[in-house]
Amino acid sequence: MAPPDSATPPADAGTGSRLALRRVAIDTYRENVAYLHRECAVYRAEGFQALSKVEVRANGRRILATLNVVDDEAIVGNRELGLSEDAFAQLGVADGHLASVSQAEPAASIPALHRKIAGERLGREDFRAIVRDIAEHRYSKIELTAFVVATNQGELDREEVHFLTEAMAESGRRLDWRERPVVDKHCIGGIPGNRTSMLVVPIVAAHGMLCPKTSSRAITSPSGTADTMEVLAQVELPEAALADIVREHRGCLAWGGTAGLSPADDVLISVERPLSIDSPGQMVASILSKKIAAGSTHLVLDIPVGPTAKVRSMTEALRLRKLFEFVAARIHLTLDVVITDGRQPVGNGIGPVLEARDVMRVLENHPLAPIDLRQKALRLAGRVLEFDPDVRGGDGFSIARDILDSERALAKMNALIQAQGARAFDPDHLNLGRLSFEVEAAADGVVTGIDNLQIARIARLAGAPKVAGAGVDLFRKLGDAVLRGEPLYRVYADYPADLEFARQACGQSSGYAVGGEDEVPHVFVEF
Amino acid sequence: MAPPDSATPPADAGTGSRLALRRVAIDTYRENVAYLHRECAVYRAEGFQALSKVEVRANGRRILATLNVVDDEAIVGNRELGLSEDAFAQLGVADGHLASVSQAEPAASIPALHRKIAGERLGREDFRAIVRDIAEHRYSKIELTAFVVATNQGELDREEVHFLTEAMAESGRRLDWRERPVVDKHCIGGIPGNRTSMLVVPIVAAHGMLCPKTSSRAITSPSGTADTMEVLAQVELPEAALADIVREHRGCLAWGGTAGLSPADDVLISVERPLSIDSPGQMVASILSKKIAAGSTHLVLDIPVGPTAKVRSMTEALRLRKLFEFVAARIHLTLDVVITDGRQPVGNGIGPVLEARDVMRVLENHPLAPIDLRQKALRLAGRVLEFDPDVRGGDGFSIARDILDSERALAKMNALIQAQGARAFDPDHLNLGRLSFEVEAAADGVVTGIDNLQIARIARLAGAPKVAGAGVDLFRKLGDAVLRGEPLYRVYADYPADLEFARQACGQSSGYAVGGEDEVPHVFVEF
Repeated sequence: MAPPDSATPPADAGTGSRLALRRVAIDTYRENVAYLHRECAVYRAEGFQALSKVEVRANGRRILATLNVVDDEAIVGNRELGLSEDAFAQLGVADGHLASVSQAEPAASIPALHRKIAGERLGREDFRAIVRDIAEHRYSKIELTAFVVATNQGELDREEVHFLTEAMAESGRRLDWRERPVVDKHCIGGIPGNRTSMLVVPIVAAHGMLCPKTSSRAITSPSGTADTMEVLAQVELPEAALADIVREHRGCLAWGGTAGLSPADDVLISVERPLSIDSPGQMVASILSKKIAAGSTHLVLDIPVGPTAKVRSMTEALRLRKLFEFVAARIHLTLDVVITDGRQPVGNGIGPVLEARDVMRVLENHPLAPIDLRQKALRLAGRVLEFDPDVRGGDGFSIARDILDSERALAKMNALIQAQGARAFDPDHLNLGRLSFEVEAAADGVVTGIDNLQIARIARLAGAPKVAGAGVDLFRKLGDAVLRGEPLYRVYADYPADLEFARQACGQSSGYAVGGEDEVPHVFVEF
Repeated sequence: MAPPDSATPPADAGTGSRLALRRVAIDTYRENVAYLHRECAVYRAEGFQALSKVEVRANGRRILATLNVVDDEAIVGNRELGLSEDAFAQLGVADGHLASVSQAEPAASIPALHRKIAGERLGREDFRAIVRDIAEHRYSKIELTAFVVATNQGELDREEVHFLTEAMAESGRRLDWRERPVVDKHCIGGIPGNRTSMLVVPIVAAHGMLCPKTSSRAITSPSGTADTMEVLAQVELPEAALADIVREHRGCLAWGGTAGLSPADDVLISVERPLSIDSPGQMVASILSKKIAAGSTHLVLDIPVGPTAKVRSMTEALRLRKLFEFVAARIHLTLDVVITDGRQPVGNGIGPVLEARDVMRVLENHPLAPIDLRQKALRLAGRVLEFDPDVRGGDGFSIARDILDSERALAKMNALIQAQGARAFDPDHLNLGRLSFEVEAAADGVVTGIDNLQIARIARLAGAPKVAGAGVDLFRKLGDAVLRGEPLYRVYADYPADLEFARQACGQSSGYAVGGEDEVPHVFVEF
């Protein structure tokens, strides 16, 4: 092997040449990027092109990265190989370590991708090959987008959704809890404040069922369950510690990001998020593959329906339910789908601290606890409890209510918080954003509509979830009477610019409609 | 306006804050990238996210860029705004100039993009809005890819192709030569060595027709017309100089990249190239929009057909021809489509220097001039000449031949070379790659197939077009007899690693098939 300072290409040029690694502190948002100086002998000899995929090997590991060409020695010298932060961390070496770099073989599944783009139906092995390449970062952002668009909206039939789900579950690790049932509860998302998991898990675990819940952080919403739980406790725990907590307490409320479950899903999200694409097939594959990989055997799935929810009609909800059921049956996951009221946010607070307040109030049977959050959590927890063979069909709700009312759920939540590592949270002195304003009703009447999307947008502009104390606190819900000038909600922020953004958004649309009592939309689901 | 070192967000935070510009020497391949330090007050105050689109204003100009977050002051400090090289150049200011940066408004056409992704048919105004946003760099790579995939393969009907073409032609400048006809000749590509433009232009211009030909550089091929012409003359000329040349000589052979014609096309290519997507609709819109923008009134279009050409059957060629004709009629471009023999490369040399040699040999009536290149150029030139009202139908070919045989075409070519700026080119001492090897026939027989794609790949691996003297020189063509051990072609390279890559590719497949005389495929087009 030629020394890295050789000016002529080494004899094994075809298989890669060695350069000193250098960490380049640019956040490339999940894309591995390698930086080579334009005058670097390896760059010239290997026939690399800007944006080609390269393979970097060091320390017995191998990663793929997109090549960026650099003309500034302050970023990378011509005997160095720069790597973006994520990529650098994956190799587990120090600055200056020698690495080899060569052209990456093109992803083997690209012909299958092209067939899908051309509208063909793909088979099990095609999806396996594509998902493996995606999980191994062999796809560029452009190829990922092509896959997401080509498998969007009715482009996948239900067998294809099954193959995709299966391939995604297989693409990473798979946990085995060595008992069953292992229960879980999941919502397809889109409803601000909908923090039922933080109530369902303590109730179900208090009953003794195994419920190792991992949640995501907010992607486009003002808070994810992991963000809200983080107000109360640590959520990023080493895996061994998490397993100990689950064994001792029968549950946990942790962030699922580091477990390597369905890794292809994390890669796909990096494209789906900026495109706001969330087609039924992709949603089913994403959710169910994570559940299978996490070792769940039984799942209660919450599909909220409403004019500003992800699912806007009962017809659509039923179609989605059947797709979930079809795939779940094929991957041997017991599934109970619950269609719920998605006409408005759940609870009062939107944003990590405000939502944590609501959850703790429900657990503490506080007089200001939001009724709708309590009711929904009890209903979902009851359905999970009915997975217990010893619970009679129909008894779940009242068992859940007993566990909540007796404060056994509160005791379990406190035990989980202590086990995960409690954080300072004082319900009487909430750490809310230091700036705020209220939005008032423009007329007398009854609240006839609350726009989930606009309320979420306002809360995000105010700084949630990055600023935990930012968000929106709702004072009125659907059907509530309100007088002109009375506050509908209060917005909290920490930064003046955030407050200003949120205020402008409220000016465009408050997200509230106030009108006659007869204009309140019907709940078209029994609740 | 707050000074750029203010720690608190300025009062006009919502409309942007000022930072010192810094050029970041990373080649981002046509994507504008802005770099902000994570600790920068503006980054924190504006609620930016990684990969959000930002608007940068300085010097009375305004550009859009994708935001990358940086953690290293050596790349950008926390009171600086870094810009990738292209982006920096667009603002036309010096390092340290103050600029404001704010959230970019989302591209207004995104809802139309989503409708196309969902499979809807779009109208004229939709395409206009999308193409305008693309040309203004308002689309991210991800959104661009989504558009390319959603408009791929039969996803566009012919009216939509018309709207797309029209929108693309309108998206940039439009030249007006103040006479007609303004003629042009174009090939859809895919055939190595096919340098007919460098013969057609001198012939047609010698006849007196106006033929201001701009060409592209290679995208995925071993050489584009601009790359080959650059062996002989300057091809990157200031616009005024080019216009003078065209007026004086009735033609030119220049690179079309800087003229701002159909700028959306250049942006789309940055996604189509890595995806190898080139659907009929996109091809028609790309080619015809450039012609209209360049002021052409009459076009001869070459569609080569063959087993390894872009178009593989006569049926496909006819369908493509009709789509070109439909759109051309609607945008008032007179179009003559010529379907040609695409079974093998045209001429002998593949790569800039080797192709320039072939072209000059044809012009000089040299005994080693490749017959097929001469014949094809005459045929196409003849069709262009017949756009002249004074030329009788059917007479074009013989007029073209007279111009070529009398060396009037050579004289015109030499005039163009001198006018554009001659480069050192000595046909007797070609500046070929200093390394080479030959590939020999493995058996006695007749050449029954030459794979365009494999020959192009070998030439690229050998270094073409980056290394002008690299490439492949073919010694045998379809139907030629060959004995075992006789050379089929010679590969030229400058770098040992390039030579090795090319040799490995030849080992996998030489690109040649040798067999019985009866196995030579029929030309299924009259030629």
